[in-house]
Amino acid sequence: MANLIPSRLAKRAHFDADTIYPILDEAFFCTVSYVADNKPFTIPTAFVRYEDKIYIHGSVGSHFMRELEKGIPVCIAVTLADALVVAKSAFHYSMNYRSVVIFAEGEKIEDPELKKAMFQWLTEKVVPGSWDYVRPVKENEVKKTTVLAFKLDEASAKVRTGMPIDDEEDKTLPIWSGIINLETKKMPPVADELSQHILLPPHLQG
Amino acid sequence: MANLIPSRLAKRAHFDADTIYPILDEAFFCTVSYVADNKPFTIPTAFVRYEDKIYIHGSVGSHFMRELEKGIPVCIAVTLADALVVAKSAFHYSMNYRSVVIFAEGEKIEDPELKKAMFQWLTEKVVPGSWDYVRPVKENEVKKTTVLAFKLDEASAKVRTGMPIDDEEDKTLPIWSGIINLETKKMPPVADELSQHILLPPHLQG
Repeated sequence: MANLIPSRLAKRAHFDADTIYPILDEAFFCTVSYVADNKPFTIPTAFVRYEDKIYIHGSVGSHFMRELEKGIPVCIAVTLADALVVAKSAFHYSMNYRSVVIFAEGEKIEDPELKKAMFQWLTEKVVPGSWDYVRPVKENEVKKTTVLAFKLDEASAKVRTGMPIDDEEDKTLPIWSGIINLETKKMPPVADELSQHILLPPHLQG
Repeated sequence: MANLIPSRLAKRAHFDADTIYPILDEAFFCTVSYVADNKPFTIPTAFVRYEDKIYIHGSVGSHFMRELEKGIPVCIAVTLADALVVAKSAFHYSMNYRSVVIFAEGEKIEDPELKKAMFQWLTEKVVPGSWDYVRPVKENEVKKTTVLAFKLDEASAKVRTGMPIDDEEDKTLPIWSGIINLETKKMPPVADELSQHILLPPHLQG
C-alpha cells in the first residue's frame, strides 16, 4: 500500500493491507466525499472490498453515481468505534477506534460479469452463505445498476487501542479509569410476513 | 430545520430535529469533509451535539482544525447501521440505517466557559454521570484545545427501516427473507493498572 500521505496522518497511522483490509471488511458503511462547485458533498453508502479495490453501487439514474463515474477525486472514509476510553480527567476521555481514509477516483465497471460479481461479494459480506441460496441476479438488474470501483493505493488507517493515557500527576488519584468495549452483535433473524413458514436456512442460523 | 436540499435527498429524507437529534446523540463519530486544492478531504472525529449545534475539538496545532477554523464549507456525515436486510434476491439485499448529512461552516469557540462546557457535554455523552466524578478540566487544557461549532440549519437525515422489499414475482419463492438487527452493546468496564483497587463508581455500573 503506497504511503503517500505520511505527514498528515503520521500519528497512529498504518498503511498496510493487514491493518486496512479487516477494517473495510467489518464495516458495512463508508462515506464517499467529492467536490462540486468548490464545496464538499458526502454520501454514506454500503460498500464491499474485493482484493485491492472497494466497490459501491447505485441506480444508473442516481445523480451521485453519475457524478462519481466521471472519475472525479473522492475521499472515502470508514470508522469503527471499538471502546469508550474512561480516563481520570475529561481532557483524556477518548475512544478506541479503527478508521480508514482512501483517496481515489471511481472506475465505472462495464463488464456485466464483474458487476454481477460485485452483487455476490456484497451479499456474502452482509450474510456469508447467501449467494447460492437467493434468487439469482437477473440481466436487467445488472443493467440498471452502476458499479464503481476505487483502488486502495492511497489508503491509510488510524487505530487507537488500549487504556487511557492520564497525566503523570493524575495517576495516583482515586478515580476509576479503564475502558468499556463496544461490541456489535447480530440479533436472532426476524422473518417477514412472507417467510413465517419458511425454514431458516443453515447460513442464517447462529 | 431548514429544508435546503429537498430534491437531492428526497427519498427517505427527514429534516426534523426529532429524527436528526437522536441519530447525532447515539453516534460517537462523524466524518468532517472539506475542500483543499479542489480535492475532498475527510477526517473521522468524535463529536457532541448540544442544542442546535454539533461540536468537535482538537489540538490548537492541528492542521485540520486550523483549516476548519477559517470557516470554510464542510459536509459532516453520521451513519448508524441498524440491521441487515435479507431479501429473496441479492438485488434487494439491503441495510437498515440512519444517517445525517450536515452542510455548515465551523465557528471557532473563543469563550473559555463554552469550551469547558464542550468537554462536559462530550464526557457526559461518552459516559453519562462522568463529569462530576473526574478530575476537573484545567485552564491550560482549555487553552490548548480548539473547539469548533457547526449549526444544524442545513441538516437532513436518511432512514431505512423495516423489512425487505422483494419483487412481486419473488414473493412466493420458498426463500427466507427478513431482517437481522444489529445492536451495539457496552461490555463490562475493564480497569487499567492504576484502577485495580478503585471501586467502580455507580455511573459506570451496568
